[in-house]
Amino acid sequence: MNNDRTYRVAILGATGAVGREMMKVMEEYRFPVSELLALASAKSAGKKLPFMGGEVTVREATEDAFEGVDIVLGAVESEHAKRFAPAIVRAGALFIDNSSAFRLDPDVPLVVPEINPEDIFKNKGIIANPNCSTIIAMVALAPLARLSKIETAVCSTYQAVSGAGVGGMRDLEEGVRAWAEGREAVLSTFPHPIAFNLIPAIGGEKEDGYTSEELKMQNEGRKILHLPDLRVTCTCVRVPVLRSHAVSAAIVTERAISVAEAREALKNAPGVVLADDLAAGDYPMPLRSTGGDAVYVGRIRKDLTSDRGLALFCCGDQLRKGAASNAVQIALRLTGRQTV
Amino acid sequence: MNNDRTYRVAILGATGAVGREMMKVMEEYRFPVSELLALASAKSAGKKLPFMGGEVTVREATEDAFEGVDIVLGAVESEHAKRFAPAIVRAGALFIDNSSAFRLDPDVPLVVPEINPEDIFKNKGIIANPNCSTIIAMVALAPLARLSKIETAVCSTYQAVSGAGVGGMRDLEEGVRAWAEGREAVLSTFPHPIAFNLIPAIGGEKEDGYTSEELKMQNEGRKILHLPDLRVTCTCVRVPVLRSHAVSAAIVTERAISVAEAREALKNAPGVVLADDLAAGDYPMPLRSTGGDAVYVGRIRKDLTSDRGLALFCCGDQLRKGAASNAVQIALRLTGRQTV
Repeated sequence: MNNDRTYRVAILGATGAVGREMMKVMEEYRFPVSELLALASAKSAGKKLPFMGGEVTVREATEDAFEGVDIVLGAVESEHAKRFAPAIVRAGALFIDNSSAFRLDPDVPLVVPEINPEDIFKNKGIIANPNCSTIIAMVALAPLARLSKIETAVCSTYQAVSGAGVGGMRDLEEGVRAWAEGREAVLSTFPHPIAFNLIPAIGGEKEDGYTSEELKMQNEGRKILHLPDLRVTCTCVRVPVLRSHAVSAAIVTERAISVAEAREALKNAPGVVLADDLAAGDYPMPLRSTGGDAVYVGRIRKDLTSDRGLALFCCGDQLRKGAASNAVQIALRLTGRQTV
Repeated sequence: MNNDRTYRVAILGATGAVGREMMKVMEEYRFPVSELLALASAKSAGKKLPFMGGEVTVREATEDAFEGVDIVLGAVESEHAKRFAPAIVRAGALFIDNSSAFRLDPDVPLVVPEINPEDIFKNKGIIANPNCSTIIAMVALAPLARLSKIETAVCSTYQAVSGAGVGGMRDLEEGVRAWAEGREAVLSTFPHPIAFNLIPAIGGEKEDGYTSEELKMQNEGRKILHLPDLRVTCTCVRVPVLRSHAVSAAIVTERAISVAEAREALKNAPGVVLADDLAAGDYPMPLRSTGGDAVYVGRIRKDLTSDRGLALFCCGDQLRKGAASNAVQIALRLTGRQTV
C-alpha cells in the first residue's frame, strides 16, 4: 500500500461504542478512504451514521460483504470476529481486529504502533488490536522497557464503563441520574450498580482466580513488548468513570532506572504526555485524557519495595487509544502514514 | 476502668463528618456514656446535634473544656489535635485522636483493636487512631501477617471522597447533580472535579515524590503490625465513591502462604468479611461495606510475580471502620468491653 491511493474500509460493528469511535477517529485523521462500509447486525441495517460530513447507511454484516474491501476494522465480540475472519481474509482484505479472538495467535501480530510497528508488516491477513487497559499500560511502560528489561509488574486498574460498551456507559449515566432524581436506577449491563461503587471483576473467571481481563496484561504485554518472560499480577477494577482507563503500576527492571531517567524517556516517548508535577497538580486524570489519543503518565517514584523498582500512574481514553484510535493508527501505518 | 461505670465523653470536632459518625457509632454500640460533650469551633457553638434519642448542644472547644472528662475522641485536624492535647492530658482525660499528629510518636500507641489491642494499655494519655486506608488494609493483612511475616506490599488505593470530609462529599454530590442537570458544578474542596474522574494525589508532597497519605501505609503499617522492616509502596487515588475506601494489595511474605490458608485465616479473622467467590459475584465493593464496620476481603490469588506473593482486594467504610468506629472500639476496650 502507498501514500497516493485511497482505500475501501469496512467497519464491522459500526453501531457499537468502538465502531462509532473508529469512524470519528478516521475523520479526524483524514483517513484516505474512498468508501466506508458500515457493517452491523441485521437489526441495525438501514440506520444512518454520520461520516465525513455526510452519512453512511448501515448494512448487515454477511460473509459476502467484504468483496473489494481493502481494510476491515473489527469492533465486534470475539465470536463474531472468529466467524467473519475467514471470509475477510478470503476476500483479500486486511482484518484489524479489536476483539481478543486472535491476539495470542502466533501468526497474528499484536500491535501498538508506538511500540512494535515493525510487527504490522509480518501479518498474514489479520492484525490484532490489544486489550484496552493493556494498550494504555504498555504505552507508558514500553519507553522504560527500552531502558532496561522489565521483569515484573504489579498493576491495579481503574477502568471506565465504556469498556463494557454503550450499555456500560448507560448503566453509569442512569445510575447517577437516578440518584440525582431520587429514584431507583434501571440497570442493564453490570451485575452490580456502578454509580458511586467499584466492581473488582472484569471478564470471566480464568485460571488461579484471575479474570480473563487480568491475564491479558501479562499475556498481551509479553507479546507487545517482546518480553516472553515478563510476569504481571494485575487486579482489574471497574470505576464510575465514563471513558478513560487508568493503571497504577509498580515495575521491577533488570537494572535500576532512576526517576530522572524515566521522566526523560517518557517525555520523549511517542503517544505519551508526561504529567508528573505533584505540587503543581499535574498528574494523569481521566478527565484530562478523555477525547484524545495520548496516554498521560505521572506520579513516577522509586518503588519502596525494590531497589530496581519504579511506581507510576497512567491513563488514556479507552475508546480512543484503548481501542478505536489504536486500530486506525495501525491502518494508517499500512497506508504509509504515521501519526504516532 | 471497668464494666459498671459510665463515662463522660467529649467529641472534639463534633460537627465534622467523622465527629458526627462517632456519635452515631456510640449510639449503636450503646456506649456507657453519662454525659456527651460536643465540642467544635466557636462558629458551631449553639448548634444542636441528635444523640441517643435526645439532643446535645455544641460548645466551643476551649482548653478548659476537658475538666472532669474521662475520654476525648478527637476528630479534628492535626494542628488542633496538637493544640488541645496538653490540656486534655492535664485534665486527666484519655485522648483517642483521629488526626495524624501523634501516630508515629513512640509514646503513643497506634491501634486497630482487631490487630494490636494490647497496645491500648501502654498509653500515656494519648492513643492514636490510624489513617483510614491504613486501618482498612491492615485489618485485611494482619491475619496473613500472623501466618508469615509480610516483607513487602504494593498497594493501590481507591479512596472515597468522605476522606476529605463533608466538603469532599459535597464536591462529588454537586458534581454529579450538576452533570444530571446539565449545568456547571460549583466545587469547593478538591483541586479538580471528582465526579467521573480520578485524582491520584491525596495529602501533601513528602519525600521522593510520595504523598503524606501514601507514606502512612508503610509507616503506620509497621507500627500497627509490629513489623519495623515492612516495606510498602502505595499509590493513593481519590475515586468518585462516597464513603468506602478500597485497596488492591500485593504482598510478599517470608514463607509462601497458599490461597486456601489465606482464606481460612481471613474467614476467622475479627472484623473481616470474606467475600471471595468471583463466579458468584461475591467480592468486596464499596456499596457493600458502606454503613458497617467490617472490612470485606476477596479476590485472593497467588501473585504471579513472586513465589511468596498473594494479591487481594479489600474495602471498608472510611468514616466508620476507617475513623469513627475504630476510635469508639478503642474507647470501648478501655471500658472493658470488646466489640471486635
